[in-house]
Amino acid sequence: MTGRTARRRVLRISLPADGRPGSRNGRADLLAAEEPLGIRIGGQALTLTMRTPGDDLDLAAGFLVSEGIVEQAGDIEQIRICPGDCGHPDHEGNVADVTLRPGRPAPAGPARSFLMTSACGVCGRSGIDDLIAAFRYDLTADAVTVTPEVLAGLPGALRAAQQVFSRTGGLHAAGLFTPDGTLLAVREDVGRHNAVDKVAGWALRDGRLPLSGTILLVSGRASFELVQKAAMAGIPVLAAVSAPSSAAAELAADTGLTLVGFLRGGSMNVYTGEHRVAAAGG
Amino acid sequence: MTGRTARRRVLRISLPADGRPGSRNGRADLLAAEEPLGIRIGGQALTLTMRTPGDDLDLAAGFLVSEGIVEQAGDIEQIRICPGDCGHPDHEGNVADVTLRPGRPAPAGPARSFLMTSACGVCGRSGIDDLIAAFRYDLTADAVTVTPEVLAGLPGALRAAQQVFSRTGGLHAAGLFTPDGTLLAVREDVGRHNAVDKVAGWALRDGRLPLSGTILLVSGRASFELVQKAAMAGIPVLAAVSAPSSAAAELAADTGLTLVGFLRGGSMNVYTGEHRVAAAGG
Repeated sequence: MTGRTARRRVLRISLPADGRPGSRNGRADLLAAEEPLGIRIGGQALTLTMRTPGDDLDLAAGFLVSEGIVEQAGDIEQIRICPGDCGHPDHEGNVADVTLRPGRPAPAGPARSFLMTSACGVCGRSGIDDLIAAFRYDLTADAVTVTPEVLAGLPGALRAAQQVFSRTGGLHAAGLFTPDGTLLAVREDVGRHNAVDKVAGWALRDGRLPLSGTILLVSGRASFELVQKAAMAGIPVLAAVSAPSSAAAELAADTGLTLVGFLRGGSMNVYTGEHRVAAAGG
Repeated sequence: MTGRTARRRVLRISLPADGRPGSRNGRADLLAAEEPLGIRIGGQALTLTMRTPGDDLDLAAGFLVSEGIVEQAGDIEQIRICPGDCGHPDHEGNVADVTLRPGRPAPAGPARSFLMTSACGVCGRSGIDDLIAAFRYDLTADAVTVTPEVLAGLPGALRAAQQVFSRTGGLHAAGLFTPDGTLLAVREDVGRHNAVDKVAGWALRDGRLPLSGTILLVSGRASFELVQKAAMAGIPVLAAVSAPSSAAAELAADTGLTLVGFLRGGSMNVYTGEHRVAAAGG
């Protein structure tokens, strides 16, 4: 159950157009695989996410980074993929069990959103203030700059790096770059948040946190959650091919992260932190 | 804090191209609003979702439908938007408190994924079997059919209905249609799952559940979660403008739902339940 794509019979229907007759044919089609991954700490269920199999150790590690449970590779003693000891053969490959280093506190129960407090079901500014207080990296101190020319080239580089999966049309990608446009890592998933967690987990396991001086490009939109994950990993610049939301821009402004949106076709919008985007040469 | 869009200053950068010089100008831009909505039952926190403000009563009601907590309008005695009694003025408008009818059991704690069980952090077939057992509507008994011609016209109808928000480029939409292509309801949100919950909540509050004989169109991809929500509302046909995932197709097959993907430009892929898609006239 761990392939990144799944083959399935599909009925393809095309309506008549431009003098051509319509058609209705069965054929095989490739779908982006989506399967559950349970993440446990010391055998206790922490969360379950629907993800595309692959880079599961990175995904589990990155989720713990985003939730503030671990900060460096040494905080994790071991991550192993379920050996099937739970009695459900179909869970094979779909459970990651994490052992924290002795002394590292595990969360008391299942993971909940940073924003959810027991006080009143809540939300709004005070929750976001709590969240900002949880960030351990000061992005405002990151003096990296990047040119618009380099930014404009990133979507093409990301697409090239993920071309194996472009067949399905169903995978989001997150790519981490240096300021000169060199690709450091690319991860894919049906869920944007998982793709970003996979990059953060790769960085943790490779001893690279915080990801100072880097640029993260995501293939879709930029939501509050993606800005949160980037900031938790110490990434100073987040670029998105599509639109950001209002909360994404607000959190980026509050944390000192540079947020770029609509990065496509040689143009872009810089929503926050424009001092990091060097003046265009043209 | 309850607008559907937010205005923000943005730096627009265009690189030189085709002999035109580059540009770098500040201007105002509209962003899709994204704010937290806390959902409580009888004052107890159930969940928190990042959503686009608007149709919040529908969103709260629809979330309860998707989670199997309510089945009909009468199960809800009252939904009210937080009157600010929690002591946080900024929560005004961002908390929905639901009172169930007497005798209707409330969940024991915060909402968790249907798939997450306490047994082993789990996943896989047994979790999905549990989930299918939770569906109360038998979609296989729904004999509705729809022609490819009607299906092909739905994306245009959905876009026209959401044109007010197309300015932001950041909103997903879910539209509910009859088999002849008549639009029954459209709801928008930065989150696809919220847009679908808003449609389900509208239907619950309007006494229309189950949504037999209807077609739900979503503007993006079709994930496992969207198929789950459609099935929980009794919708027999789910169509998506983009790709479905493998788990979406599997759950659709298991529940008897017709799943259509890549519905664009006069063509489409039918992944499951093709008996409901009438032969093309062409």
